[in-house]
Amino acid sequence: MDEARLKNLLARVQTGSTPIDDAFAELRQLPFVDLGFATVDHHRAIRQGVPEVILGEGKTAEQIVGIANELARMGQNVLVTRIDAEKATIVVRDVPGMKHSVAARTCTLEQSPIPSLSDLKVALVSAGTSDLPVAEECGETMRMLGVGFERVFDVGVAGIHRLFHKRPLLEEAGVVIVIAGMEGALASVVGGLVQVPVIAVPTSIGYGAAFHGVAAMLGMLTSCASGVTVCNIDNGFGAAFAAARILRAGKRK
Amino acid sequence: MDEARLKNLLARVQTGSTPIDDAFAELRQLPFVDLGFATVDHHRAIRQGVPEVILGEGKTAEQIVGIANELARMGQNVLVTRIDAEKATIVVRDVPGMKHSVAARTCTLEQSPIPSLSDLKVALVSAGTSDLPVAEECGETMRMLGVGFERVFDVGVAGIHRLFHKRPLLEEAGVVIVIAGMEGALASVVGGLVQVPVIAVPTSIGYGAAFHGVAAMLGMLTSCASGVTVCNIDNGFGAAFAAARILRAGKRK
Amino acid sequence: MDEARLKNLLARVQTGSTPIDDAFAELRQLPFVDLGFATVDHHRAIRQGVPEVILGEGKTAEQIVGIANELARMGQNVLVTRIDAEKATIVVRDVPGMKHSVAARTCTLEQSPIPSLSDLKVALVSAGTSDLPVAEECGETMRMLGVGFERVFDVGVAGIHRLFHKRPLLEEAGVVIVIAGMEGALASVVGGLVQVPVIAVPTSIGYGAAFHGVAAMLGMLTSCASGVTVCNIDNGFGAAFAAARILRAGKRK
Amino acid sequence: MDEARLKNLLARVQTGSTPIDDAFAELRQLPFVDLGFATVDHHRAIRQGVPEVILGEGKTAEQIVGIANELARMGQNVLVTRIDAEKATIVVRDVPGMKHSVAARTCTLEQSPIPSLSDLKVALVSAGTSDLPVAEECGETMRMLGVGFERVFDVGVAGIHRLFHKRPLLEEAGVVIVIAGMEGALASVVGGLVQVPVIAVPTSIGYGAAFHGVAAMLGMLTSCASGVTVCNIDNGFGAAFAAARILRAGKRK
Amino acid sequence: MDEARLKNLLARVQTGSTPIDDAFAELRQLPFVDLGFATVDHHRAIRQGVPEVILGEGKTAEQIVGIANELARMGQNVLVTRIDAEKATIVVRDVPGMKHSVAARTCTLEQSPIPSLSDLKVALVSAGTSDLPVAEECGETMRMLGVGFERVFDVGVAGIHRLFHKRPLLEEAGVVIVIAGMEGALASVVGGLVQVPVIAVPTSIGYGAAFHGVAAMLGMLTSCASGVTVCNIDNGFGAAFAAARILRAGKRK
Amino acid sequence: MDEARLKNLLARVQTGSTPIDDAFAELRQLPFVDLGFATVDHHRAIRQGVPEVILGEGKTAEQIVGIANELARMGQNVLVTRIDAEKATIVVRDVPGMKHSVAARTCTLEQSPIPSLSDLKVALVSAGTSDLPVAEECGETMRMLGVGFERVFDVGVAGIHRLFHKRPLLEEAGVVIVIAGMEGALASVVGGLVQVPVIAVPTSIGYGAAFHGVAAMLGMLTSCASGVTVCNIDNGFGAAFAAARILRAGKRK
Amino acid sequence: MDEARLKNLLARVQTGSTPIDDAFAELRQLPFVDLGFATVDHHRAIRQGVPEVILGEGKTAEQIVGIANELARMGQNVLVTRIDAEKATIVVRDVPGMKHSVAARTCTLEQSPIPSLSDLKVALVSAGTSDLPVAEECGETMRMLGVGFERVFDVGVAGIHRLFHKRPLLEEAGVVIVIAGMEGALASVVGGLVQVPVIAVPTSIGYGAAFHGVAAMLGMLTSCASGVTVCNIDNGFGAAFAAARILRAGKRK
Amino acid sequence: MDEARLKNLLARVQTGSTPIDDAFAELRQLPFVDLGFATVDHHRAIRQGVPEVILGEGKTAEQIVGIANELARMGQNVLVTRIDAEKATIVVRDVPGMKHSVAARTCTLEQSPIPSLSDLKVALVSAGTSDLPVAEECGETMRMLGVGFERVFDVGVAGIHRLFHKRPLLEEAGVVIVIAGMEGALASVVGGLVQVPVIAVPTSIGYGAAFHGVAAMLGMLTSCASGVTVCNIDNGFGAAFAAARILRAGKRK
Repeated sequence: MDEARLKNLLARVQTGSTPIDDAFAELRQLPFVDLGFATVDHHRAIRQGVPEVILGEGKTAEQIVGIANELARMGQNVLVTRIDAEKATIVVRDVPGMKHSVAARTCTLEQSPIPSLSDLKVALVSAGTSDLPVAEECGETMRMLGVGFERVFDVGVAGIHRLFHKRPLLEEAGVVIVIAGMEGALASVVGGLVQVPVIAVPTSIGYGAAFHGVAAMLGMLTSCASGVTVCNIDNGFGAAFAAARILRAGKRK
Repeated sequence: MDEARLKNLLARVQTGSTPIDDAFAELRQLPFVDLGFATVDHHRAIRQGVPEVILGEGKTAEQIVGIANELARMGQNVLVTRIDAEKATIVVRDVPGMKHSVAARTCTLEQSPIPSLSDLKVALVSAGTSDLPVAEECGETMRMLGVGFERVFDVGVAGIHRLFHKRPLLEEAGVVIVIAGMEGALASVVGGLVQVPVIAVPTSIGYGAAFHGVAAMLGMLTSCASGVTVCNIDNGFGAAFAAARILRAGKRK
Repeated sequence: MDEARLKNLLARVQTGSTPIDDAFAELRQLPFVDLGFATVDHHRAIRQGVPEVILGEGKTAEQIVGIANELARMGQNVLVTRIDAEKATIVVRDVPGMKHSVAARTCTLEQSPIPSLSDLKVALVSAGTSDLPVAEECGETMRMLGVGFERVFDVGVAGIHRLFHKRPLLEEAGVVIVIAGMEGALASVVGGLVQVPVIAVPTSIGYGAAFHGVAAMLGMLTSCASGVTVCNIDNGFGAAFAAARILRAGKRK
Repeated sequence: MDEARLKNLLARVQTGSTPIDDAFAELRQLPFVDLGFATVDHHRAIRQGVPEVILGEGKTAEQIVGIANELARMGQNVLVTRIDAEKATIVVRDVPGMKHSVAARTCTLEQSPIPSLSDLKVALVSAGTSDLPVAEECGETMRMLGVGFERVFDVGVAGIHRLFHKRPLLEEAGVVIVIAGMEGALASVVGGLVQVPVIAVPTSIGYGAAFHGVAAMLGMLTSCASGVTVCNIDNGFGAAFAAARILRAGKRK
Repeated sequence: MDEARLKNLLARVQTGSTPIDDAFAELRQLPFVDLGFATVDHHRAIRQGVPEVILGEGKTAEQIVGIANELARMGQNVLVTRIDAEKATIVVRDVPGMKHSVAARTCTLEQSPIPSLSDLKVALVSAGTSDLPVAEECGETMRMLGVGFERVFDVGVAGIHRLFHKRPLLEEAGVVIVIAGMEGALASVVGGLVQVPVIAVPTSIGYGAAFHGVAAMLGMLTSCASGVTVCNIDNGFGAAFAAARILRAGKRK
Repeated sequence: MDEARLKNLLARVQTGSTPIDDAFAELRQLPFVDLGFATVDHHRAIRQGVPEVILGEGKTAEQIVGIANELARMGQNVLVTRIDAEKATIVVRDVPGMKHSVAARTCTLEQSPIPSLSDLKVALVSAGTSDLPVAEECGETMRMLGVGFERVFDVGVAGIHRLFHKRPLLEEAGVVIVIAGMEGALASVVGGLVQVPVIAVPTSIGYGAAFHGVAAMLGMLTSCASGVTVCNIDNGFGAAFAAARILRAGKRK
Repeated sequence: MDEARLKNLLARVQTGSTPIDDAFAELRQLPFVDLGFATVDHHRAIRQGVPEVILGEGKTAEQIVGIANELARMGQNVLVTRIDAEKATIVVRDVPGMKHSVAARTCTLEQSPIPSLSDLKVALVSAGTSDLPVAEECGETMRMLGVGFERVFDVGVAGIHRLFHKRPLLEEAGVVIVIAGMEGALASVVGGLVQVPVIAVPTSIGYGAAFHGVAAMLGMLTSCASGVTVCNIDNGFGAAFAAARILRAGKRK
Repeated sequence: MDEARLKNLLARVQTGSTPIDDAFAELRQLPFVDLGFATVDHHRAIRQGVPEVILGEGKTAEQIVGIANELARMGQNVLVTRIDAEKATIVVRDVPGMKHSVAARTCTLEQSPIPSLSDLKVALVSAGTSDLPVAEECGETMRMLGVGFERVFDVGVAGIHRLFHKRPLLEEAGVVIVIAGMEGALASVVGGLVQVPVIAVPTSIGYGAAFHGVAAMLGMLTSCASGVTVCNIDNGFGAAFAAARILRAGKRK
């Protein structure tokens, strides 16, 4: 329903040519989505500061440049994830202000300042050096969402004392994100150590029976530590968003 | 948004205490779902004659009886699917007018006459005797939807001449539903023989590498016959609904 | 059985040297496939205007060129699917009149005009930009089959209002094709919104637990919306053919 | 290391018979776990009010009774999950004060009052009647953890307007838990509608390609809505614990 | 096409009212399946002595009795496979002459004598006592097909000398059928020892990673012994049929 | 046990220094494998004319050249399978007399004439052009084994009349090898048409739910045609060997 | 080859009627397996004290009784594994001296004393009460093999301090067997803590994504702790045998 | 807790300003991990001679060089596994003393002499030439761990006599490592032949149903030979470590 039609209806009510009951009946029959659309737009305004996200994978560099430039024109901050080096070179060249993080496989455009979402920090825990790309994707996403975080890297279960050394830091965090491949046991150990929210991200690190992250994913889903929740394999981005949801909710109170 | 609030708004427009533009803005900000709900109710009216469906599996007999009796009071026809004999006995006992089909594992309550959806019939093809429960579930569902159909049973690929004998019947159908377990090759052969819409339903018949219908499901999804579409394993109900969608669409023209 | 043998039999009947009953018995014993072959040829004549299809994947450019040129000589329209850019370059060069769609990964040769199959259009719905290649393959195939369609792109479930905005268009369609990767939830939402036939195509878009389209495929097969049918992963071609089967059947009445 | 040995060391330091550096070296060589154990005990004190949990599955009724009675003697609240009716009868009979919830398949013993964890409530959303056991297990667990919640049941995606009607309630929640089987699309739709933390629980509801919850699990893990996290199939208990982690963290600030 | 129509055509040829060329054209257009059906019947005559087979699984005792009695009336020998003890009791009671083999889970009705298919015997090799039901199903099927066989049981790979002791017997066989569960290594060892045709049947024996026969099935399909072919899990029946195909072919020469 | 030790024992028997019973006891304790080795060598002599086979995959060109040249020196015929074009170029260059078949991805060295194994021929049936590499690997292997064969290509199920046209040829074959990808339904149809031994080879042709040959493999294993046996995915080589086993066995009689 | 034939050969050597070289040649041609059989018997003598094992699953009580009584008559110790309570009752009744362990699901017959295999003990570590049946099967098997062991139960990763408390005991063990379900993380933590051989046994404990032990199995196979080896799911028996192999080998030195 | 804080506490005890009981209580409350860390360091000293291991896969050449040089500076021996030729070239160039094994895909740096771990040797058994890279990785790792070994290559099950010839060597080994792809039957045969510890390593050799090592892995896990344990697919490194654990444990006694 377009604006004209709705205003015309209201005008008919105003002039009395359409009784209230008839107008009410007519309103009830309108396709709700157009009004709904308004509601959503309203919400979008609230989301100021949240970056627009482009999944780089499965898109050509040209498509990414096109979308990014359109968003840039609207003053949006932009985050491109899962973008390989070749495409990133083109995107950085063709989108003014865009920056590339090799480690995180992201491109980011920061046009408006990013307000801090919470005083609480996220503890970003990873098992080994090979999990770094996923951890960095998570970190870049948190940065773009205004989420502060501290890195706790290379604390795999095989040398468990390194993790225990960091226990106080974990317990003070607002959220702990655990990024691990292979068997993903780190999530269970962390989940057993602390009571804060724990988000587990399986990575595709490992070979053979690791099945590109499936072993870690199943291990995290069936963790014996209660209340650990899980993201998709290699989805550092999603973990960052989940952390932002939690910190934002905590702030509200 | 409740009715009172909307009528109050219209009243304010009528009396002029709220200008049209303000009323329009206020309407735009309303949660759209309430109006949307109206729209949907309106649609529901159109669906007269369509039965309400209860998935029997995962519900207690008491839950089924409760839902069915509520629907019955509203004059609805009711179809209960995937209901075992034990539960069905209770449902038939406690819901007046409810009937049980052992072969189809369904219960049906027919309160209002079911109008015929189309002059075209569905050819309901199945590979073997063991596929009968799925075929009958499909048949009962079609009956409740007003879809006429003709059974073409026991025409498995291993004795392919029996199928060929029925070719004219298949070509005159509005839709062909192919129900087969094991390797599900029947869907490919039928899809290659006729040009009418073919809906394939893998069944959980078979053992070992049949993996409870997975072999048939994969076989049907990768059929070398172009344009065969697939339902979930054992989902005779879904195939009947898909056929109804097609015949209803064809009727519209 | 060759023609000579059959004519010889008929001649013997004509001259009376073979009684009718004997001829009848002899005919019954003939391998049926040769006559069958005739029947099929007859059907083929009916299919005028339907393109011949070559699956590009798994064939060399030389093989594709060979088959395509042979079909071209017979006046056929030709559709090559799943052909990469490198092979397409050769095919376009070596088959006169062949055209390449990069987005759809298809080559098409249009020699005879393609009659429109139906006045009803297909609504071609896709979830995101990354699903575009599958959607375009579907579109090119529909074009070659004489099926009209309207694109409804980028209406993923995460921003569901965009989809609702297009509801009227969906409800007027003869068929809705829903193309989506990741979790494929779009098919369920569309299936719940409209009553027309819905064909779901899972795409291999997504990573990790998407398992190259398996998550979407399982999600679509188990959709809570009744009567949604499913094609193979990335099989935009198959969905187009299924739509054509439906529209052709609808036309018949 | 037992207490005696450590005190003896300290006594030797006090009397000067062991120099500080030697004592330090000796301490460094002690097995750390005994001291560690003390630390953990200290933590346990903080956890007052948290119930002890017994996974009923895989244990005999006798084992459950034994563990529960021991915990009861220590004044603990007790939650038994995944316990079938037969075992529950014995447990209720043999553990004084224990109560059984048939719907949730839990037994609970409430000896000390359960303090409320947060003013914020959890919205407990489920797709259909068949998901009820998992939803109720989640609810019972939240009750034992002092988490308030509101039920939003039967809002499956196929009739999406029912969900939209509840949007305000969802947006005011501290956490939304989405429980759904089949394709689990509800998690994506909810995740796209609200910005609060969303925890998705796939259920084993459905048949065929639902693969006892795998389709829903994969669908939720690959959700196109950013920041949805996932629990194990049917793990209503885990979702409740994850929600408690989030609300507890939010309270701290 | 019915008989009348074909005879009428021939009569028109005989009387000269239809020229040969026209008759020929008309014949070509006939639906071939009806003639085809005759051909098949003809073939069936050749198959005298081959039993009719009923897959007991997925059929009710009543359905089995019905089909078996109908076949019995036509003088056929009947083999019912995968029939549990409860159904078998009914079938033996209600089908005169039917006999039940508990070990093989089969029922057999021998009305006409079964001619021997070949002088060569099949060596029926199985790994362990638990594989016996599959081996016996295979044996009963061979008996009904007129295939002679010798049992070589309990020669699993863990005690490989027992197998070697039987090598001469294996080398003299016309076909070796190897039935094994767990890892199914026996098929590879036998395939490496002898040059005769080897048919491998994985069984669902084993637990855990045996995955109900999948480990054995994959092991047999990827056997390092060249030219071993594989049947479905637990398909002793199929192996017997495959052996009969081979012996029958060998006899022809 | 080396020769010297055994002869020494016999010498002691001859001279009477070791009684027969003692010698017998000593012989019984000897490690049997050395004698066994002799037996096997004896068998190897029988296998004259059978080519030595090298699996090219997973070996470097240098390794292949090394093994092949060693075999060549011993006068053996050599068959290299699954060798890519790059390696094949080196092998053909460095092994005198070696020839490369691009279509079959094989290299062959024919030094001694290959005797014909049987008067019966194999019917080598394939579904589509894309299955050609597997079919040709099968063909090359049969050629090297002295197995005559006839190609029946491009007879996929979607156009089933083409297959029926070839039925007599199939029925006269000693073995039918069916090579098909996608859903592999061709094996079931052929298995239902003819009574000769049918060996099915699933190919990795197809995409999505074809899962690189899994759909075809499962379909063939669960074929509703009795007595069809199956080789590994893409294993044209294995099918050829299985056919040779069958023809060799048939010849023996 | 039977004894007579071999003695006859030796006699011919003794009498000089067969020259040594001829005898040698004749011996080389003998089927080696008969001699091999002797060798194996010899080995069996060495194995005195090792129980004969019967896998109870897949056998009837009658079969088990039959085998056990035959072994009993030969003075063997007997271990029956994976035997349910119903069968065990019959076995205990019908095999004199047989005892049943409900917890371990085993029956054991101890006729001859079991010598201790090593002074080193096995640490039998399990994660939770539900893993008890597998741990007890392992324990009973070790007892029958003469392997001493100490139980370290209920030390799951979620409360990791309990495990650390037991570290000295683990480090003094000859082998550590870790039995755990769910995600099986315990194996990684133990493998990182100690340097002794670690054998991991995944159990089928857990639900949903635990997939009856698959999650634990994959987790253990991909453990980040180096040199952890894995047994089949629930295979406590196998772990005990593996431990016995290790302790026996260690003793040899 | 840093050293200063602990010494300060001891000083307070020494001067009497803190009573022993208070000091004891304070010590109990200390975060145990710091003391624990000391314990671990102590252990590390014991491990002199054990190489530090870097998993090359998933790391950049720069990361590997960085870690390796840091370890080199501390005098450590270094083993880099799963490193491709391209990265290895850089690592060898930039880390002085580093050597590359092409066959094993490892780089090794030997700075301090490697003491022999045991007089017993490992028998390193592999099925075919294609398994060589995994076998060599295993060999290089054993070399770096001071484990002596003997190669028993190319003894696949298809020619089982070659394996039997090596039986004495296997029986004298301290550990047998069996490396095999395809169906992995070799592990079962070896496990049945010898009583020493058998570690099985499935390799990703094979195609189709070998599923990159899954067939072999499942086959080895379900081996009918008792007490065979299994490593991850292609994990020659892990098998070497497991062997070292066993030989080290055996030495202790």
